[in-house]
Amino acid sequence: MLIVLSGPSGVGKGTVRQAMLADSFKDFKYSVSMTTRKPRPGEKDGADYFFRTKEQFQQHIADGEMLEWARYVNNYYGTPLGPVNATLDQGQDVLLEIEVNGAMQVREKCPDGVFIFLTPPDLQELKQRIEKRGTDDAATILKRMEKARNEIKMMENYDYAVVNDKVNLAVKRIEAIITSEHNRVPRVIDRYRKMIGV
Amino acid sequence: MLIVLSGPSGVGKGTVRQAMLADSFKDFKYSVSMTTRKPRPGEKDGADYFFRTKEQFQQHIADGEMLEWARYVNNYYGTPLGPVNATLDQGQDVLLEIEVNGAMQVREKCPDGVFIFLTPPDLQELKQRIEKRGTDDAATILKRMEKARNEIKMMENYDYAVVNDKVNLAVKRIEAIITSEHNRVPRVIDRYRKMIGV
Repeated sequence: MLIVLSGPSGVGKGTVRQAMLADSFKDFKYSVSMTTRKPRPGEKDGADYFFRTKEQFQQHIADGEMLEWARYVNNYYGTPLGPVNATLDQGQDVLLEIEVNGAMQVREKCPDGVFIFLTPPDLQELKQRIEKRGTDDAATILKRMEKARNEIKMMENYDYAVVNDKVNLAVKRIEAIITSEHNRVPRVIDRYRKMIGV
Repeated sequence: MLIVLSGPSGVGKGTVRQAMLADSFKDFKYSVSMTTRKPRPGEKDGADYFFRTKEQFQQHIADGEMLEWARYVNNYYGTPLGPVNATLDQGQDVLLEIEVNGAMQVREKCPDGVFIFLTPPDLQELKQRIEKRGTDDAATILKRMEKARNEIKMMENYDYAVVNDKVNLAVKRIEAIITSEHNRVPRVIDRYRKMIGV
């Protein structure tokens, strides 16, 4: 099963992903991303990222070997397809933690993946803030409203929306989603059918 | 949210339901069934069942006050609609534990309920048993195959299939499903939309 964790910039995807990797539940393999940016001190190739040259990355794109990719500023970032398929072929879940544009690329290629949108808690606080103005000026509120509107628009393309109010709570919700999805009838019924040969 | 726990006769629905009610998670209200059978020693009206006369039960059916009902042997069994709606209106989840025919009646009336099919572990063991015949005779195997085929056919009408291999494991899976369903985008997105007034 392919699990895609995504959400708006700054919502804390990376922190939630790290907490998931540190948790005892960890019943999946994290998919290491590929990038052309230089490694920072302490970062290891194959663990933090696959560090590649621009030429190598472009070749991967040309060869159809990227599940999703994007260019930010002057660097490429993406998910190499090979390790994802290898893990899925072993019958193990794969976790991707990627940007919303990348998630939409994956959705097209893997519609039966599990798409989780991490939402900022301030989306919930927004109404209260609007109701008791005074602390924020009108321009700030309008900007926040616009951001919230965009986030809700993005959410429509996902299966689940998980509030990142507290990291450990968000992790528990995501783990429940993973357990739950493994019990969904469309995912298990073929296994049952094969058992009795129908 | 309406949670419907069902499954073939003898799978252990009642035991799993009781374990769910005893568990600390218990974030739902159990819907007490109505019956025309006589109370057994120790059974209390309104706790174990709503005990009613046949005339009263038939009147409930005629008044459209039963969410689902069936007649077994000479008695009626069913789910009164009133308490279910009252609990849902309070924003609390309701758990029904009912027979497969009743579950299909509920599915028609409440398509956005969460329908969980409890499966017997012997469905999984069946293949092994078939492969190493000798312990069972041909007629027994055919009968088990037919039963399994029917169970898989029933499963198609449910959202989730949970194996009742061990009661505490089945309970954990069902609790994960409940948590997970509360994070599904179609269930939460309107709340978000209302927050920002779109």
